[in-house]
Amino acid sequence: MATQPIQDLKKLCIHTITTRPWSLSDAISHYAAAGVAGISVWRQAIEGQDPAEAGERIRDAGLAVVSLVRGGFYPAGERKDRQKAIDENLRIIDEAAAIGAPHVVLVCGAVPGQPLEESRKQIREGIEATLSHAESSAVKLAIEPLHPMYADSRSAINTLKAANDLAEAISSPLVGVAVDVYHLWWDPELEEQIERCGQMGKILAFHICDWKTPTDDLLYDRGLMGEGCIPVRRIRGWVEAAGFAGFNEVEIFSTVRWTQNQEQWLGEIIRAYRESS
Amino acid sequence: MATQPIQDLKKLCIHTITTRPWSLSDAISHYAAAGVAGISVWRQAIEGQDPAEAGERIRDAGLAVVSLVRGGFYPAGERKDRQKAIDENLRIIDEAAAIGAPHVVLVCGAVPGQPLEESRKQIREGIEATLSHAESSAVKLAIEPLHPMYADSRSAINTLKAANDLAEAISSPLVGVAVDVYHLWWDPELEEQIERCGQMGKILAFHICDWKTPTDDLLYDRGLMGEGCIPVRRIRGWVEAAGFAGFNEVEIFSTVRWTQNQEQWLGEIIRAYRESS
Repeated sequence: MATQPIQDLKKLCIHTITTRPWSLSDAISHYAAAGVAGISVWRQAIEGQDPAEAGERIRDAGLAVVSLVRGGFYPAGERKDRQKAIDENLRIIDEAAAIGAPHVVLVCGAVPGQPLEESRKQIREGIEATLSHAESSAVKLAIEPLHPMYADSRSAINTLKAANDLAEAISSPLVGVAVDVYHLWWDPELEEQIERCGQMGKILAFHICDWKTPTDDLLYDRGLMGEGCIPVRRIRGWVEAAGFAGFNEVEIFSTVRWTQNQEQWLGEIIRAYRESS
Repeated sequence: MATQPIQDLKKLCIHTITTRPWSLSDAISHYAAAGVAGISVWRQAIEGQDPAEAGERIRDAGLAVVSLVRGGFYPAGERKDRQKAIDENLRIIDEAAAIGAPHVVLVCGAVPGQPLEESRKQIREGIEATLSHAESSAVKLAIEPLHPMYADSRSAINTLKAANDLAEAISSPLVGVAVDVYHLWWDPELEEQIERCGQMGKILAFHICDWKTPTDDLLYDRGLMGEGCIPVRRIRGWVEAAGFAGFNEVEIFSTVRWTQNQEQWLGEIIRAYRESS
């Protein structure tokens, strides 16, 4: 059966990066006024602020804190740099606990030229080194597999299968997976790996946007749902069939959109969320 | 055991697109003078020319015709357009036979917004519709899996596993696979799928270049071997261990390199081939 369109905004979450020109205060007030239900907070949006106070402001506005974005970047050539990354991730977990985010999204990291299997080993070690702190903080860690075009420098975890394998190997109730349609839509094994992730109880987040043709930039040219070729609604159907009942998080990096009037942009996001998600 | 560096140029093939500013005649004379052993001919390099005569000129210069690039692009929304693609592929097979290329490289195609499984079905049907002509022409068809960043509009076949599955399903001695490090290097299953492809006797070609960090353009910013993060030599070792004894084909699309003096560029390719392949 075809997945039904979304009827309301109860599960709509927006990542602060999507409306990057806005301060956290601007984002909170505009999202809340528009009926958005949740917010995923990028760390730069709370830089220099008290995360606990930011969390209170968000909840006072009627919004849920859906996630803190982003931890990870564990691999490094030198041991001392890997330790630095672990220390930073411990601080990120503290921030997540303070702001009241149930999980941190992990962009796992990669070092150009370092063999991917070495980076993958370091990623596992990095996550495991923060597990007890995550547990005592009651903050989950969401491994986000990144598109293979980011395997050089951003993540050595590039398919949902790889993320599932890693989460399964770590085997902690604290560690799950973030499913982002931008990174994963092309994979012939996507449906089966979403099902597997659901069976493990490990789908922690669902991120949406679209893939434009042409894509003019590897990083900052993501599309709004409906502007591209990703079957967002169909993938949402798979995620829901796998038992996920959380937010649909709009995460769009777009140089073009960031130069646009952000109120108008928010309006377009909400329209696209209803029509094409 | 670590794969040994390349000692000579006996297996060095260059794709005409790599030195795009050169005419076919220029490419032939410069490649031959530099000791390059083979040439993979892009169709635009012989546009308006007699392919049989072009093949003779290549062989007269002491070069092998390694492949004709490229056929494919089977998927289309309308049946008549899919038939057009099949007709074009029949002509491409004729061209390959005329120029003396043992195989055609297939960029399989994709239609933005058409479900990938539909495109995959159309790709299989398109290849199968040309099989008897390929057989009578003694021209093989090499399915080239393309990087997932091209899944929107260039190919719905995006992993070596997908290409192996397709080649296995078609099950014809005419159909094999082209392994290109640029498209496949990130895949955790690469070594095992190269081994599988070798066991099926289906590795028809091996293409090399590098992935630069950062990559500034999705299409035209490939790097020279050694400029990026791809373990080219290691992957060559896997391909050779799988029984492949053919050419190492340098295929680089680079706007920057195409504006450079092409003789100097050819010299750099040969140095990088010895040092980093």
